[in-house]
Amino acid sequence: MKEKLFRDPVHHQVVVDHPVIYDLINTPEFQRLRRIKQLGTTSFTFHGGEHSRFSHSLGVYELSRRIVERFSKAFSDIWDEGENLLTMTAALLHDIGHGAYSHTFEHLFDTDHEAITRQIILDDSTQIHAILSRVAPDFPEKVASVINHTYPNKQVVQLISSQIDCDRMDYLLRDSYFTGVEYGQFDLTRILSSIRPVKDGIAFTYGGYHAVEDYLLSRYQMYMQVYFHPASRSMEVLLTQLLKRAKVLFQRNPAYFERTSPRLLPFFQKNYQLKDYLKLDDSVMTAYFEDWMEAFDPILSDLSSRFINRHVFKSVVLLKEDPELLKKLQDLVLEVGYDPTYYTALNQSFDLPYDIYRPTANNPKTQIEILLADGRLQELSQTSPIVHSLLGTLQGDLRFYFPKDMLQLDDLFTEEKEAFIQLCQNSNQG
Amino acid sequence: MKEKLFRDPVHHQVVVDHPVIYDLINTPEFQRLRRIKQLGTTSFTFHGGEHSRFSHSLGVYELSRRIVERFSKAFSDIWDEGENLLTMTAALLHDIGHGAYSHTFEHLFDTDHEAITRQIILDDSTQIHAILSRVAPDFPEKVASVINHTYPNKQVVQLISSQIDCDRMDYLLRDSYFTGVEYGQFDLTRILSSIRPVKDGIAFTYGGYHAVEDYLLSRYQMYMQVYFHPASRSMEVLLTQLLKRAKVLFQRNPAYFERTSPRLLPFFQKNYQLKDYLKLDDSVMTAYFEDWMEAFDPILSDLSSRFINRHVFKSVVLLKEDPELLKKLQDLVLEVGYDPTYYTALNQSFDLPYDIYRPTANNPKTQIEILLADGRLQELSQTSPIVHSLLGTLQGDLRFYFPKDMLQLDDLFTEEKEAFIQLCQNSNQG
Amino acid sequence: MKEKLFRDPVHHQVVVDHPVIYDLINTPEFQRLRRIKQLGTTSFTFHGGEHSRFSHSLGVYELSRRIVERFSKAFSDIWDEGENLLTMTAALLHDIGHGAYSHTFEHLFDTDHEAITRQIILDDSTQIHAILSRVAPDFPEKVASVINHTYPNKQVVQLISSQIDCDRMDYLLRDSYFTGVEYGQFDLTRILSSIRPVKDGIAFTYGGYHAVEDYLLSRYQMYMQVYFHPASRSMEVLLTQLLKRAKVLFQRNPAYFERTSPRLLPFFQKNYQLKDYLKLDDSVMTAYFEDWMEAFDPILSDLSSRFINRHVFKSVVLLKEDPELLKKLQDLVLEVGYDPTYYTALNQSFDLPYDIYRPTANNPKTQIEILLADGRLQELSQTSPIVHSLLGTLQGDLRFYFPKDMLQLDDLFTEEKEAFIQLCQNSNQG
Amino acid sequence: MKEKLFRDPVHHQVVVDHPVIYDLINTPEFQRLRRIKQLGTTSFTFHGGEHSRFSHSLGVYELSRRIVERFSKAFSDIWDEGENLLTMTAALLHDIGHGAYSHTFEHLFDTDHEAITRQIILDDSTQIHAILSRVAPDFPEKVASVINHTYPNKQVVQLISSQIDCDRMDYLLRDSYFTGVEYGQFDLTRILSSIRPVKDGIAFTYGGYHAVEDYLLSRYQMYMQVYFHPASRSMEVLLTQLLKRAKVLFQRNPAYFERTSPRLLPFFQKNYQLKDYLKLDDSVMTAYFEDWMEAFDPILSDLSSRFINRHVFKSVVLLKEDPELLKKLQDLVLEVGYDPTYYTALNQSFDLPYDIYRPTANNPKTQIEILLADGRLQELSQTSPIVHSLLGTLQGDLRFYFPKDMLQLDDLFTEEKEAFIQLCQNSNQG
Repeated sequence: MKEKLFRDPVHHQVVVDHPVIYDLINTPEFQRLRRIKQLGTTSFTFHGGEHSRFSHSLGVYELSRRIVERFSKAFSDIWDEGENLLTMTAALLHDIGHGAYSHTFEHLFDTDHEAITRQIILDDSTQIHAILSRVAPDFPEKVASVINHTYPNKQVVQLISSQIDCDRMDYLLRDSYFTGVEYGQFDLTRILSSIRPVKDGIAFTYGGYHAVEDYLLSRYQMYMQVYFHPASRSMEVLLTQLLKRAKVLFQRNPAYFERTSPRLLPFFQKNYQLKDYLKLDDSVMTAYFEDWMEAFDPILSDLSSRFINRHVFKSVVLLKEDPELLKKLQDLVLEVGYDPTYYTALNQSFDLPYDIYRPTANNPKTQIEILLADGRLQELSQTSPIVHSLLGTLQGDLRFYFPKDMLQLDDLFTEEKEAFIQLCQNSNQG
Repeated sequence: MKEKLFRDPVHHQVVVDHPVIYDLINTPEFQRLRRIKQLGTTSFTFHGGEHSRFSHSLGVYELSRRIVERFSKAFSDIWDEGENLLTMTAALLHDIGHGAYSHTFEHLFDTDHEAITRQIILDDSTQIHAILSRVAPDFPEKVASVINHTYPNKQVVQLISSQIDCDRMDYLLRDSYFTGVEYGQFDLTRILSSIRPVKDGIAFTYGGYHAVEDYLLSRYQMYMQVYFHPASRSMEVLLTQLLKRAKVLFQRNPAYFERTSPRLLPFFQKNYQLKDYLKLDDSVMTAYFEDWMEAFDPILSDLSSRFINRHVFKSVVLLKEDPELLKKLQDLVLEVGYDPTYYTALNQSFDLPYDIYRPTANNPKTQIEILLADGRLQELSQTSPIVHSLLGTLQGDLRFYFPKDMLQLDDLFTEEKEAFIQLCQNSNQG
Repeated sequence: MKEKLFRDPVHHQVVVDHPVIYDLINTPEFQRLRRIKQLGTTSFTFHGGEHSRFSHSLGVYELSRRIVERFSKAFSDIWDEGENLLTMTAALLHDIGHGAYSHTFEHLFDTDHEAITRQIILDDSTQIHAILSRVAPDFPEKVASVINHTYPNKQVVQLISSQIDCDRMDYLLRDSYFTGVEYGQFDLTRILSSIRPVKDGIAFTYGGYHAVEDYLLSRYQMYMQVYFHPASRSMEVLLTQLLKRAKVLFQRNPAYFERTSPRLLPFFQKNYQLKDYLKLDDSVMTAYFEDWMEAFDPILSDLSSRFINRHVFKSVVLLKEDPELLKKLQDLVLEVGYDPTYYTALNQSFDLPYDIYRPTANNPKTQIEILLADGRLQELSQTSPIVHSLLGTLQGDLRFYFPKDMLQLDDLFTEEKEAFIQLCQNSNQG
Repeated sequence: MKEKLFRDPVHHQVVVDHPVIYDLINTPEFQRLRRIKQLGTTSFTFHGGEHSRFSHSLGVYELSRRIVERFSKAFSDIWDEGENLLTMTAALLHDIGHGAYSHTFEHLFDTDHEAITRQIILDDSTQIHAILSRVAPDFPEKVASVINHTYPNKQVVQLISSQIDCDRMDYLLRDSYFTGVEYGQFDLTRILSSIRPVKDGIAFTYGGYHAVEDYLLSRYQMYMQVYFHPASRSMEVLLTQLLKRAKVLFQRNPAYFERTSPRLLPFFQKNYQLKDYLKLDDSVMTAYFEDWMEAFDPILSDLSSRFINRHVFKSVVLLKEDPELLKKLQDLVLEVGYDPTYYTALNQSFDLPYDIYRPTANNPKTQIEILLADGRLQELSQTSPIVHSLLGTLQGDLRFYFPKDMLQLDDLFTEEKEAFIQLCQNSNQG
């Protein structure tokens, strides 16, 4: 096919030269990703970060394309060129099952974007499936197994999913570019020129290890500063509370939701199908929340309005989960007149910047290997003292969220608020 | 107040240090701009260009802030520091009346985003108005008059609206940054250090004229390559056609629209109020179009689906409006089975990259003045030969849009399509 | 060979994967380019522009490498892969004959860097020649003929030398990067993806013509703002005058120069050999000028000191060469006590931003061709209205240089200086 | 005075608006910094890194100007505006005493660039001193005391010299920009907006601590990858050896050096004055080394040629200083025919990325303080876990250098070389 170029601010251009990739991009299931923000609620804190999962998915594809092109050219002894299309397809589709505000939504409605991803690929109702099946009858299954980590060729799997994969490389660069938080930048060219297929996966040449080190430090910085930003998490808290409230109200007054928010019904009723899921996106959710600002219920109406107009909760860092302290804080919030079920929340955000493979862990990591001049592999933290110091450490915090006016002393509840502020200060306000 | 910093990828940071500005940003009317894409349908062609009018408005404000801060410090003899807040406020609010897909929407529904802007500022139902009124009773009127070009101080007016103003400088840099089309970049720092308040407006020092020249060339490139991109215009055409169809159908079947798209009713009924206008945004429109993909009417359903799934029309350049040729093309489209009212369109896009002030013109331009070492002003095209060559020239083209399959010869209508293709080739297909 | 990567700030990395290229880089003749500044006296005006011809030559090579790699992969029907090494070698060596402050030096000492380039390639005393001869006995001659434009394959010739070649693309990007003058940036990636080998040379796809247009505009800006900057040209004037003075003094007092500046003797004596030429570089010349600051002759000493300590002459634009005016200006400079032979100068700098091929011109240009969708070639100014407006126009100015204190009225020569200033003002002081 | 703008690729522009600064820049002592490369021998490894100490010194000044301007505007309660000129002057002049290849030269000739800096400022033979004295008779002394760390106002001292000062911030950004090693970039804007004058020095707001953290990580990366690069250190080794040889030969044959390298005599004779020191720069040294390539002594001639033509020594990492191993390695080098005094060397490069203040240390560090919301100061490693992990650790290595052909087995000394290679491999070749 004639090469198609998509202008991309992160990778300059995304090159599509395989008709399967082009056709996949043009399916409704993939175009739908234009309507889902990559960063969810984070764009309320970093106003530049309004890019979509569509843009990210093209980026992941482009990285995979560059890598397999180079592997095929320079390392054809160890890389099987026959895996190129599979790798690029898995890269393009790895997030196809994401929905609006996925993480929050999943938690409340028991959906699972990874399961949906597999379903979109395997279910013969989708255009994605039809296109994949044209390649070979078992191709959809192969694509799903790569995303699922069960595909036997670990080179392919690790390019799509490991501690340094096309997905992470793209989202760090992309989120950094769009938010304007420069810490997320790292030396992609260097990483791409030092990545190597090895017997059981991928590795990085010794000469490129500083670039890998820098990638991990950039990742750490993006987590600390962007993904775990207290204000973004506050928007997540608001979203959770307003959906929680809607679920409760649905039991009492389903007619209201049938009228204002029909596409949510299958989820309220815990009885949804793939086609229902594909009809949800940020636009629809936002349109519903805007309607709910005029809802019959003052809590739903207020929380929707806070979310739409970005009136965030404030927060304090809790050094540990202390049920007694929590109870006191909630009681004080209640005394001032807010229902703590909806107007307070605990939110913990922790990340493991890097870890070695630990077979007994819940979710064992694929460790990063450095390819030495003599052909041996060395796990990254053996090469890099700074990575060694990050190894296995959890970074993040636990926060208690509450309405901002709990910190203002200009009204009726002064005494309660003073008590609240006192307790907060003891807990290390951020 | 304590300075608030908004991280911005274009200007690095947006600094808010005046409580009026901070409060304006936090109004529902301003937060609503988060839900309106700056580039409208262009983001379907340049997938990075998904930024909002919120982000652009903050950028315009930031540029104005930097300029008035410098004017107050270095040119206080000719610049009145008392104008600072007014200038920054007008910059922040210059686009507050924009709605979803404004240009297309206005054309079909007789709305006017400039009139709405004034209304949002002047109508005492808005939070914007309330905040502005706290500054001084006549402050809303002053802000509106700056945006309206009638404010007596031309320095302030030209910073907000002229051939090189804060609005244009921000949108060129921002659209360039987000789309990844680097041609839109120019030397902002140099322009900011050469801008000067003069007796009747603003001017640029001789030393900075190359930066101004480069700004105009960048602007030219952005128009040619981004704003006038045939595929973006195709999405506009689709949008126009689908809304046109909906208007017609509303007359026949209002109940359908009452149910699926209640917020559009006041516009279908030509009887809308400010509060109705403020309830429309990209999310709502998109949610409606998604619903309409299942509409009773095959044309509305098909056009909505084309828009949502980005199945664009193709186009050819017409060298001039030739009613006879147009008729023939439309007839052939009709023969193949498409209603040309909805499945063809003419779209012309022309821009005047730069012009001098022509008092008798429809819309006279404020020419760009260069401040010479001896204090005289010289109109830019006198200084710059390359600008002279662009002076008063119109750049752009006229295109005829039609369904892509008119170019494919693999079906029943081969003869008609061949005739169509023949006519297109004579008209210089792009 | 194992790929060698040179970190390069402009192209990110320069990849050397052919042993001939690697060996050429390691010759004394090529390493010598580290000691010659790319921008000569311009670094006194743009302090960042201190990069060497070594860095530029690697850059030109890298661009040629990327192009021939792509040509070999994607256009092997029309591009002969056997030309790859020749193209890359000619790119690497195109400037190998440049010397210290070449343009000024050549003018005064009748050297010719193009002739020297051929000599370095063809003379069997050089290591360059030895390495080239190992490829094939006629390889040195082929490399010289590419640089000389006489090689039959015009694809190769035009990649190295035309109105848009690897040389110009690298120097615009590089000079822009190092000086910090952003106007010189253009969309290299887009140009590299739209360049095509065609029957008689190279062309650019229609889709890339805006990038080519932007390249020409960037080139225009770099000439106007950097290469023709009045202060840089003033340093060139100083250099010319001080070398002119040294030549005169050498006739009177050769012993002084034998002692202080032995490597210049063959040039003073007009009897130099290749090995003498290769011993001159910026370091040596600078070291000599520093010694000359203490010379027996007050004019040589003063001019050297002005050059070393950057005390530039001032200048005014002359609208045309007017011998009468010139005489008056020189007389006034003389009256104040400066010898106008050494303390005044005319300097004209004009550039032709773009021209079509004109067979009868002195130095006919290879015009830029756009490859249309139907396979026809169209000369760029037919495609681009903005290039059309630049076509064949000369841009630049003519300046008269003189000592700065001619403009200061605080001393003995007030009357003469007033007359001088009067004349200057009539001549449009820049 | 009329503001002068210097175009700068790192800070975009350097603004000079005080006549003392402008006059200092125009002195011969300051212009001399144009002839001294910032990175010394490192530009042989990173070919882009050819920038001068002139460019760096302007950059340090510019950073100090931005900081004191902001301090004067926003923190005038705690910052004394009267310190602005002093701070900017100290910033501009902090490196004025640097000479050609200072670190190596000092070691061999017992010069001391810090002592020379003070002398240039305090000695009334210099133009620098004359200009400073015009400000106030004690101003030179004050400037020297800031650079010397003895000035009582620690705010001023720490801006010029601490673990995060204008000097380091500029050189990291600048060296990163010119070499193209992107790891050295950090968020300068954020640091400049979070820096605060506090009672006994400077501090950074809590909100900016990630930017400070990132600065330290960037610094670490630049040390590991650029400043400690084995090839750059190899050029330093060559330089040391060739100057060492010249010193020895001077005792035997002073006439040779009187003729070829007159400006080095005072240093060979250990009897130099300030004016002698100011006559040395990179140009002069390079011109001398070029002459020495033809010296009577084969060792001097060979080492000079290696340096000029970049024929670097190879190296291996030694895990510790082991005199026995060293002896064996040197003996084998000797057996092959190289004098180990000149053809081998140990080079150790270690850096302390960050440390707290330790009063009993050799060279106690000024620790970095974070200003908490409640006004308390907290040492950075208390705030940042990643900095905590770097605290007080030494990073770097110890290398043994030797001629490259010790690793090649194609000649007469095969047995000795094999023994040598064996020993190297046991010592962890890099």
